[in-house]
Amino acid sequence: MRVVDLIRKKRDAGEHSREEIEFLINGYTRGEIPDYQMAAWLMAVFLRGMTKAELTALTEAMLYSGKVLDFTDLRPKLPGTGKTIPGLVDKHSTGGVGDKTSLIIAPIVAAGGLVVPMISGRGLGHSGGTLDKLEAIPGFRVNLSNEEFRAALEKCGCALIGQTAEIAPADKKIYVLRDVIGTVESPSLICASIMSKKLAEGIEGLVLDVKTGSGAFMKKEEDAAYLAELMVETGKRMGKKVVALITDMDQPLGRLAGNALEVKESIEVLAGGGPSDLRELCLELAAWMFLLGERVSNLEEGRALAAEMIASGRARDKFREIVRQQGGDVVVVDDPEKLPLARNKVDVKSASAGYLVSTQCEQLGIACVVLGGGREKKEDAIDPAVGLEFHKRVGDAVRVGEALCTIHYNADARLDEARKLVETAYMIAAEPPKNLRSLVHRVIGA
Amino acid sequence: MRVVDLIRKKRDAGEHSREEIEFLINGYTRGEIPDYQMAAWLMAVFLRGMTKAELTALTEAMLYSGKVLDFTDLRPKLPGTGKTIPGLVDKHSTGGVGDKTSLIIAPIVAAGGLVVPMISGRGLGHSGGTLDKLEAIPGFRVNLSNEEFRAALEKCGCALIGQTAEIAPADKKIYVLRDVIGTVESPSLICASIMSKKLAEGIEGLVLDVKTGSGAFMKKEEDAAYLAELMVETGKRMGKKVVALITDMDQPLGRLAGNALEVKESIEVLAGGGPSDLRELCLELAAWMFLLGERVSNLEEGRALAAEMIASGRARDKFREIVRQQGGDVVVVDDPEKLPLARNKVDVKSASAGYLVSTQCEQLGIACVVLGGGREKKEDAIDPAVGLEFHKRVGDAVRVGEALCTIHYNADARLDEARKLVETAYMIAAEPPKNLRSLVHRVIGA
Repeated sequence: MRVVDLIRKKRDAGEHSREEIEFLINGYTRGEIPDYQMAAWLMAVFLRGMTKAELTALTEAMLYSGKVLDFTDLRPKLPGTGKTIPGLVDKHSTGGVGDKTSLIIAPIVAAGGLVVPMISGRGLGHSGGTLDKLEAIPGFRVNLSNEEFRAALEKCGCALIGQTAEIAPADKKIYVLRDVIGTVESPSLICASIMSKKLAEGIEGLVLDVKTGSGAFMKKEEDAAYLAELMVETGKRMGKKVVALITDMDQPLGRLAGNALEVKESIEVLAGGGPSDLRELCLELAAWMFLLGERVSNLEEGRALAAEMIASGRARDKFREIVRQQGGDVVVVDDPEKLPLARNKVDVKSASAGYLVSTQCEQLGIACVVLGGGREKKEDAIDPAVGLEFHKRVGDAVRVGEALCTIHYNADARLDEARKLVETAYMIAAEPPKNLRSLVHRVIGA
Repeated sequence: MRVVDLIRKKRDAGEHSREEIEFLINGYTRGEIPDYQMAAWLMAVFLRGMTKAELTALTEAMLYSGKVLDFTDLRPKLPGTGKTIPGLVDKHSTGGVGDKTSLIIAPIVAAGGLVVPMISGRGLGHSGGTLDKLEAIPGFRVNLSNEEFRAALEKCGCALIGQTAEIAPADKKIYVLRDVIGTVESPSLICASIMSKKLAEGIEGLVLDVKTGSGAFMKKEEDAAYLAELMVETGKRMGKKVVALITDMDQPLGRLAGNALEVKESIEVLAGGGPSDLRELCLELAAWMFLLGERVSNLEEGRALAAEMIASGRARDKFREIVRQQGGDVVVVDDPEKLPLARNKVDVKSASAGYLVSTQCEQLGIACVVLGGGREKKEDAIDPAVGLEFHKRVGDAVRVGEALCTIHYNADARLDEARKLVETAYMIAAEPPKNLRSLVHRVIGA
């Protein structure tokens, strides 16, 4: 088998065999296939696509390029019955602005008795990352070894960590290459990347939160739905329970974006407060996790169980337990003002009166990056304190001079660019918007 | 400007500005852009194509990545008038089996008073290369410096050399990469590669021999014509006189293929003999070169002048002069049996009676490579003596047991595979073929 012949095959829209895909992925992971050949193949895949059989083979090859964790011995029991349930579950979001659901759902679901081995990522482009948010908690360690990860799951049913060197190394290597050769936005490559990582966690059920709208990577709903279908089908072919919710990212989720600010808002929700959109989506995602894990027998029960975990304080207790276990300062859980705060705040005010009809949500995410809350280059350090506070949601009435958004910032030098991005991200019109989009557009794979 | 943004632009079928293309080509030539980014961009170009403006910019960027030779001071004069003519001309063939026209045309045209600064290539895939053929002449040096090249042109009006390090280095680097990433067969990339090299020679007129048929890289006539049009238009945009002949490569050109064997046949044609197809095509190509160089005022005069150069012995004298000048043993010109000969010969005989209706011409070229006449890997050494001798042309009657082809070989170990390729390359049928293809299908750019 020659690499150049496989590149030519995909270039000419041919279909690879499983052996051909394994040859490429294993050869590249071992360093036997050079970056330039992989780059040409990835571009051919980007432009020619993959069949579902190819995609399954690719995902599996990437998954088995490293260690696949096995936590089946940690499967939980259904309370009151002693019956073991497939309760190793996780959630993955394709990313957006203000999307801090992982921080809220993981403790809710673990408090409800399931096991959540969550391997998360860092901020990418305009979107925030769970690891960056967690690291806003002083002392919080996301780089656990596989042994520490297992110990944490045994002890409290949940841990939130970063991708270790042993987890899907093919994905790690390909991901870095894709970023610099312009092949990020490929549904097939995104699917293989997400699913190989998530399935290496040793989970049985996975809830996918596929974002669509101006703040998502998939701006168009049909693209989000296509990616969702690919991931659901690939996961199911690999024997997992997978469901995907297509959810709205036409405006930020919740009222806060920025690492420490999002931890603060997550704690608010866990304490029974927080903005309704964020709370609602968390209950919905947690309900699906309970359902896939067979902790409940229908979605309504799942929602009720999630709400109960909040109302009883058990979810917040679980979050405190997770933070302590991973070395974080638990003081912030009861007093979020102890989180890193930005030195300065400035309001962006509306120049006109009317109704907020839409936001350029990606632009708001970029504003956070510009403030220092994300990375423009891989080696950039993150400022956990900066971010945006949103005062208006789409549909709200707006007066002239009323604050639309408050910018939390540290470096004056970064303010101007961020402010310009925020100012131009709000569309105000005389009439209220006709059709407000629901938070969950649809569910795929149920 | 960021490379990744340019890759994404071409990936999404965008059109590059001249500045963007110069940024990519110059950055890559200087080693500032890594192979993997160039590989992704080349695949995107392969699959998305280029506009004519982009292609011109690409060709120019590759041309000016190195030294562009200037021989305008060597422009010849029209005999009997003293008038300087644009007589710096060359020919380029896209490659085929048995295509040794360069060895015949260059001396004919130089004998006719024009200047031929010919920079040629090596064998590629199943097709032979002029440099490999010339090196079958003991002592012949193709690696002249630019100074030696100029001195040779001054002295005898012609030199046949390889691409020096100073000529189109961008092309050299991109060509090596394209070979291993499966982006060879792109009309745009082929056009830029050929034209950047040829225009760096400092020529004023270029005759392109674009092959089509089973032994050509462009199997379909429409693909050959498309490539021809691209090259003609690109050359004209750059102020050159360019004409392209679409010629037949559905069967080998002439009776011999293999390096020394092709030198032998070239000498036969220069001596007034040789097979009629080869002779006819050489006269036609030389006539076009005379016309572009304004040595003659119409094609008929050009054909007559070319024929006269052969009949008078002046073309053969010029070939002898070229060989001597480049260090080769001139004895072979008068006694081609002094060329390297293969130790063994074996006939491939027809198993059936009827007519030769077609050949798998590429397969015959591959048989030559297998015998050792070409390279399977870049570092392979060439055996100049081996090759094929063709006894039948399409349309010829064939008896059972009659020899179709004689294999000239040295290594027994290579014979079996070559013989199988030759045996299955001949299609014999009961009825003669209906429509014999003409040698020159059409002319583009005249």
